Amino acid sequence: MITLYDCATAPSPRRARILLAEKGIAHDTVQVDLRSGEQLGEAYRRINPQCTVPALRTDDGLLLTDNAAIAAYLEARYPNPPLLGETPTEKAEIASWNWRVEFEGLLAIAEALRNSAPAMANRALPGAVNYPQIPALAERGLLRVAQFFTLLNDRLEGRDFVAANRFSVADITAVVAVDFARVVKQKPGEQHPHLLRWRAAMAARPSMSL
Amino acid sequence: MITLYDCATAPSPRRARILLAEKGIAHDTVQVDLRSGEQLGEAYRRINPQCTVPALRTDDGLLLTDNAAIAAYLEARYPNPPLLGETPTEKAEIASWNWRVEFEGLLAIAEALRNSAPAMANRALPGAVNYPQIPALAERGLLRVAQFFTLLNDRLEGRDFVAANRFSVADITAVVAVDFARVVKQKPGEQHPHLLRWRAAMAARPSMSL
Repeated sequence: MITLYDCATAPSPRRARILLAEKGIAHDTVQVDLRSGEQLGEAYRRINPQCTVPALRTDDGLLLTDNAAIAAYLEARYPNPPLLGETPTEKAEIASWNWRVEFEGLLAIAEALRNSAPAMANRALPGAVNYPQIPALAERGLLRVAQFFTLLNDRLEGRDFVAANRFSVADITAVVAVDFARVVKQKPGEQHPHLLRWRAAMAARPSMSL
Repeated sequence: MITLYDCATAPSPRRARILLAEKGIAHDTVQVDLRSGEQLGEAYRRINPQCTVPALRTDDGLLLTDNAAIAAYLEARYPNPPLLGETPTEKAEIASWNWRVEFEGLLAIAEALRNSAPAMANRALPGAVNYPQIPALAERGLLRVAQFFTLLNDRLEGRDFVAANRFSVADITAVVAVDFARVVKQKPGEQHPHLLRWRAAMAARPSMSL
């Protein structure tokens, strides 16, 4: 059986959770409590030395330690429904938008949160090494989140999906990013009508409640 | 004919250049002079509104504006030699290492450079928006580059390639990252014997001189 090492309150494992649900892949889930630092303890370090979630143990024992690996593996093993695209053009557009949402959305929100939250002092980056907070990076993160909302709203004008003309990992990553922005008190408003329409349509998918 | 919008001195377009060479794909090249800010001018903005290189115009007119899109598209259109892996396990490992080298290597070097170089004042991030430099981020970038060299050296102990047991985009991204580190005066030394052995072996590939 596939096992997902998960944390119900964190954005990165949510991406894996939604992907598994969209593909209908049966799996076990193990919760890792990031708030108490369980990911840094000996027990979890033996499972994933990188001290991050999500991690996914496949049924043949392979350990996948990030969403890039998880998406590539699951798409190849369980091609239907395709979430990374079918044609070269679809694959390109989905890969591009997934990357942009990671870099311009998720990373910006993480920078804003990790460099300001008192509970994350010295945890400015995920993983095994501690880094001190950089307040100016938190401020820049907030500016970039606002820019990300504008980017995504402009992109979604007249479109049902972020990339190509089908639901894809780019939509999954974008939903997770938009929802995650709440941790830094940012959310889309009436100036983002296309983004709000798309998010409301996404809410009809059962995976998005996970 | 495929057209690559390139800049001979920059790391991101070098990734696309090496990929095209490894796949043996004929193409035209247009140089964009990043040092004089040509990427921000009206002429290039009409080609790629994101004001970044590489950009690749396909023979059917599609514009691809980042390495994620370029790799996904070219792998699907020109599958041989495969550079993103063939089996699910290979695809996962290559995607994962490519992502790690981008985040822990290229991004760290870019942070160190862009937040310290006098010539890049207000250009702390690529793209159309200006952001001021954050000196503390430059310092953190240098620490992370050192950590990246250790990571890559450990990974390459007893291995010929960064991911899977074949040459892949993970090797391309890693060569570009290691070479790019010179701009912040970092290079691997005798404490990185596995990394140095692998880099020397990579130098035998004609694409790596591009």
